[in-house]
Amino acid sequence: MYNQDMTNKAAANLRLVRERKPLVHNITNYVVMNYTANALLACGAAPVMAHAAEEVEEMVSLAGALVLNIGTLSIPWIEAMIKAGKRANALHVPVILDPVGAGATALRTDSAKRLIEELSIQVIRGNASEVLSLSRERPGSRTKGVDSVHTVDQVAQMAVALAGELKTVLAVTGVVDLITDGKQTCRVMNGHEMMSHVTGTGCTATAIIGAFLAVEPHPLTAATTGLAYFGLAGEKAAAKASGPGTFQIALLDALYEMKEEELKAGARIQL
Amino acid sequence: MYNQDMTNKAAANLRLVRERKPLVHNITNYVVMNYTANALLACGAAPVMAHAAEEVEEMVSLAGALVLNIGTLSIPWIEAMIKAGKRANALHVPVILDPVGAGATALRTDSAKRLIEELSIQVIRGNASEVLSLSRERPGSRTKGVDSVHTVDQVAQMAVALAGELKTVLAVTGVVDLITDGKQTCRVMNGHEMMSHVTGTGCTATAIIGAFLAVEPHPLTAATTGLAYFGLAGEKAAAKASGPGTFQIALLDALYEMKEEELKAGARIQL
Amino acid sequence: MYNQDMTNKAAANLRLVRERKPLVHNITNYVVMNYTANALLACGAAPVMAHAAEEVEEMVSLAGALVLNIGTLSIPWIEAMIKAGKRANALHVPVILDPVGAGATALRTDSAKRLIEELSIQVIRGNASEVLSLSRERPGSRTKGVDSVHTVDQVAQMAVALAGELKTVLAVTGVVDLITDGKQTCRVMNGHEMMSHVTGTGCTATAIIGAFLAVEPHPLTAATTGLAYFGLAGEKAAAKASGPGTFQIALLDALYEMKEEELKAGARIQL
Repeated sequence: MYNQDMTNKAAANLRLVRERKPLVHNITNYVVMNYTANALLACGAAPVMAHAAEEVEEMVSLAGALVLNIGTLSIPWIEAMIKAGKRANALHVPVILDPVGAGATALRTDSAKRLIEELSIQVIRGNASEVLSLSRERPGSRTKGVDSVHTVDQVAQMAVALAGELKTVLAVTGVVDLITDGKQTCRVMNGHEMMSHVTGTGCTATAIIGAFLAVEPHPLTAATTGLAYFGLAGEKAAAKASGPGTFQIALLDALYEMKEEELKAGARIQL
Repeated sequence: MYNQDMTNKAAANLRLVRERKPLVHNITNYVVMNYTANALLACGAAPVMAHAAEEVEEMVSLAGALVLNIGTLSIPWIEAMIKAGKRANALHVPVILDPVGAGATALRTDSAKRLIEELSIQVIRGNASEVLSLSRERPGSRTKGVDSVHTVDQVAQMAVALAGELKTVLAVTGVVDLITDGKQTCRVMNGHEMMSHVTGTGCTATAIIGAFLAVEPHPLTAATTGLAYFGLAGEKAAAKASGPGTFQIALLDALYEMKEEELKAGARIQL
Repeated sequence: MYNQDMTNKAAANLRLVRERKPLVHNITNYVVMNYTANALLACGAAPVMAHAAEEVEEMVSLAGALVLNIGTLSIPWIEAMIKAGKRANALHVPVILDPVGAGATALRTDSAKRLIEELSIQVIRGNASEVLSLSRERPGSRTKGVDSVHTVDQVAQMAVALAGELKTVLAVTGVVDLITDGKQTCRVMNGHEMMSHVTGTGCTATAIIGAFLAVEPHPLTAATTGLAYFGLAGEKAAAKASGPGTFQIALLDALYEMKEEELKAGARIQL
């Protein structure tokens, strides 16, 4: 029922992150900086947050992956993202984008589209509303509530088409995560409802995919295996938590404690 | 002894927040962004942090309340607060201000006064020093230590007068929270000493009042019921905590777990 | 084996922090602001974060110590640090610098050196790479990985020489913390490996030394005793934690709960 090859890849990638401890350069939002850094450390990666235009090129040249997140964006930060992204592209450092709130305001939608236009981005992770707002074909459309007006199958179809259009991997996370490059599509059934009661779990998923991109050359595989690991950690944490406070703390423990064998046994990935 | 009508209102407002999941737009300080977002999620509200002048008007138009907090203020952020606040006023989105550190530096006192001057603000929440520094009548006075030079009754008298002067609701939090619109005054006896050992509990109280303002048209009631809910959650958390670390986590759990019946039984509100 | 005089000083300084509750003014990075504030509160100090050029001079005039941390630096923040630092120097408020990432990018190395050049700084705390990158004699040298190319004894020798050159106290933290003013050198054996799996423990150590500087006139003693207290709290927290999430929370509890007698019994300081 679940894809054993991808499951094995998940465990292998987790081991590689722990062995190589890749530096993950984040230009991200103020809300999640601390939690993201802790989650990356719990995985075994080495996080760095740096946003000054004067240093992002030098910093990204030391990194194994670049995470761009527009959650509390402003114009200077977008400029720094472009600068860091161009250097990352030149050095073949993989780039992942989290278009937080795209579809909600013009600044967010336009900034995300500009990043996609000017950079080569290997993975974009967001919820359905955010990801589907990025289509070039619907420049002015508000996509707020896309989840409620389309069925899961319709969202999947639109995501597959958009991945082809944008020539990137889209990771649309939700009850089931859908990861597609337009040709191949994976689904991750891991995760727990409690994750929606903690801020920045989506942003954290993005950062973890970033760590996996640093060790896994195939972006579809990096996104799929990273999300399975993160989702399974969420399930383990929920079993120990009595609310969203204890859950967010247990999630860091679960990321740290996860054994490769557990991940092999617990990952629920379908192709 | 305690006001049953307000207690019932507290439970009803908590239910409304959970049912309607209002978007609460925060322009707040870096220190508390993560904790505030988590507290709002734990209540059932939907937090968003956005501070760029280019998007605050659009964002606040989607929101049920606007929270302004000057805890790590700088000039561009104050401009964004003004912009967001004016749009909120035009759309009748309620606004709450947390004048963190007013009375300590001229920038803070002056910025808070400017926000009050240029915007219609429904509730201002702070400690006695912060709130009483906002009087137009004492432009240059340092109010640091107001708690120590005035009795509780003097502070209450001054707050009642100031609420009338500013034509807003003042929520002066402390061992006993005092909420007044200059005519009617409520007191909330809930809370726990441990709250003073965690950063941003005041800011979190402000954000929670913001969520209550999104569902309760009467600002005095919104502030009073929000503070009773938050204070009771603090009591519940303290019973489970062994120090300020475990307390801050237990507080998020307590906000999430609070049953309406518990709130009815535990709220200690006096008129 | 351990220095009893320093151990007694550690307990005495902890008591003074709790009694005097010094205001510690932090101009620090976004990642650790919340955790640092909570750690300072757990110690008994009163944290404030303020970075606007318009208010830093006024804020630092109220403070018992100034903490400068370049972890997410940008040009305007460095200017604010210079401004706050100059006022602090004029008022004899002690200043501590955390040169996060110095040696990794030119902006960080140059900014840290500029702060050292323009200000009188009482303590600089960082890991070996960061601290040793600050030598005036090696302007262009990349010091990344200094830990791996030099022995512990070589690092110690270089730190002693650099402290003399810079005329300040250097606190080089690691498995063993080395604190030196170029003449006298102390070593702190406290701490736990789990501290390296949580973001900002180094920054937190810096802030705690800041609190100790506010009550202890001798910078070498402030740094040494602060690090012993922080390290011992780390050991206590590790005994209760099952991973980095529960550890970071237990660490706040441990800072809060630490008894002076425990610190006297558990501090492992060598001269």
